[in-house]
Amino acid sequence: MKILVVGANGKIGKHLVSLIQKNDNLEAKAMIRNKEQASFFEDLGAEISIVDLEQDIDAIANAAEGVDAIVFTAGSGGHTGKDKTIMVDLDGAVKTIEAAKVADVKRFIMISSFDTSREAIQEAASSFAPYVAAKHYADEWLKNSDLDYTIIHPGLLTNDKGTGQVELGSDVERGEVPREDIASVIAASLENDTTIGKEFQVVSGKNPIKEALDSLN
Amino acid sequence: MKILVVGANGKIGKHLVSLIQKNDNLEAKAMIRNKEQASFFEDLGAEISIVDLEQDIDAIANAAEGVDAIVFTAGSGGHTGKDKTIMVDLDGAVKTIEAAKVADVKRFIMISSFDTSREAIQEAASSFAPYVAAKHYADEWLKNSDLDYTIIHPGLLTNDKGTGQVELGSDVERGEVPREDIASVIAASLENDTTIGKEFQVVSGKNPIKEALDSLN
Repeated sequence: MKILVVGANGKIGKHLVSLIQKNDNLEAKAMIRNKEQASFFEDLGAEISIVDLEQDIDAIANAAEGVDAIVFTAGSGGHTGKDKTIMVDLDGAVKTIEAAKVADVKRFIMISSFDTSREAIQEAASSFAPYVAAKHYADEWLKNSDLDYTIIHPGLLTNDKGTGQVELGSDVERGEVPREDIASVIAASLENDTTIGKEFQVVSGKNPIKEALDSLN
Repeated sequence: MKILVVGANGKIGKHLVSLIQKNDNLEAKAMIRNKEQASFFEDLGAEISIVDLEQDIDAIANAAEGVDAIVFTAGSGGHTGKDKTIMVDLDGAVKTIEAAKVADVKRFIMISSFDTSREAIQEAASSFAPYVAAKHYADEWLKNSDLDYTIIHPGLLTNDKGTGQVELGSDVERGEVPREDIASVIAASLENDTTIGKEFQVVSGKNPIKEALDSLN
């Protein structure tokens, strides 16, 4: 199973490509913005595709050609302007969803924000609300597509070492979660069809990831 | 026929409320952000509702209670940050669409931008692309609703006196158009059911507005 990782050069993306390359059932194609980001992925033996998310749908569809699933883990990051919030977190995500359709890739995993509900937009601080809104509309676009989607809503991301144990569900208490564990949840979701058509929050917890995903039913 | 004008205090909004109040078949309810904006509309004898578009759907739905149509002509304006582009041009529009459903108002007229296609987002200058994207997603949301919508895509807006004559269609050459003529197109569309389920561009031209709208069929 070949996975296009969009936003591979992000912290979750790097963990994910590493995990995929260690898994005999999976292989990664890392979508990155420029050649300077390539060496990390070359060292892992991953295929590379150089596409900027601000390019058009066809450019992303070319990268998606022949893969079996797409993981969207790109993010504009907190340091960029709100213009990038629209152009990457919303429009980049929607273009990737449309590219999946063009390239006939049915499986799509979206890395969202902890709470992207309508209520969360209203309740967010004014500096954060545009990001929540952008993620809300990207999630809505995916849910209204006919793709086999999974939407993962991580808690507060940390760089701590992963524990392989999480709490996972539709209404978990907000908490921290290592990026490495989110990467593990994504990799496990790719091999677990019970996650199709579902969205769930993930924080650190006491349940092994595979068992937690199986209990989604 | 009672019309909620969202963004009444904008330049198009003021022209529109004036036109509506002069029309025996129509009456306006001006939705404005604060009391200081009220006197213009009070002088026209229009009803007033004070709601900020950053409030929630219920607040907008309250304003929409009992009206027969909603016109969305609010805009963040070029002088605000890109956070307002998301929160007003996109999220404010979507909340107004959802409020129409809550208040059971079927008729909805959206004032969009000249070209909000996917191609227009890609081709726009980077400083303008977020605005085009925000309008694109608002238009898409409306088209995917079951409201009786009309989407009006004006050319470059001017403060020139209206001529009452336009060119109007799905692929007209980009050009200027007075805000006063756009207000006239909106008012005429409210009384013309052939505009339901349609979107069209409008620039200055040689056709009387009513004839131009009739020819949309």
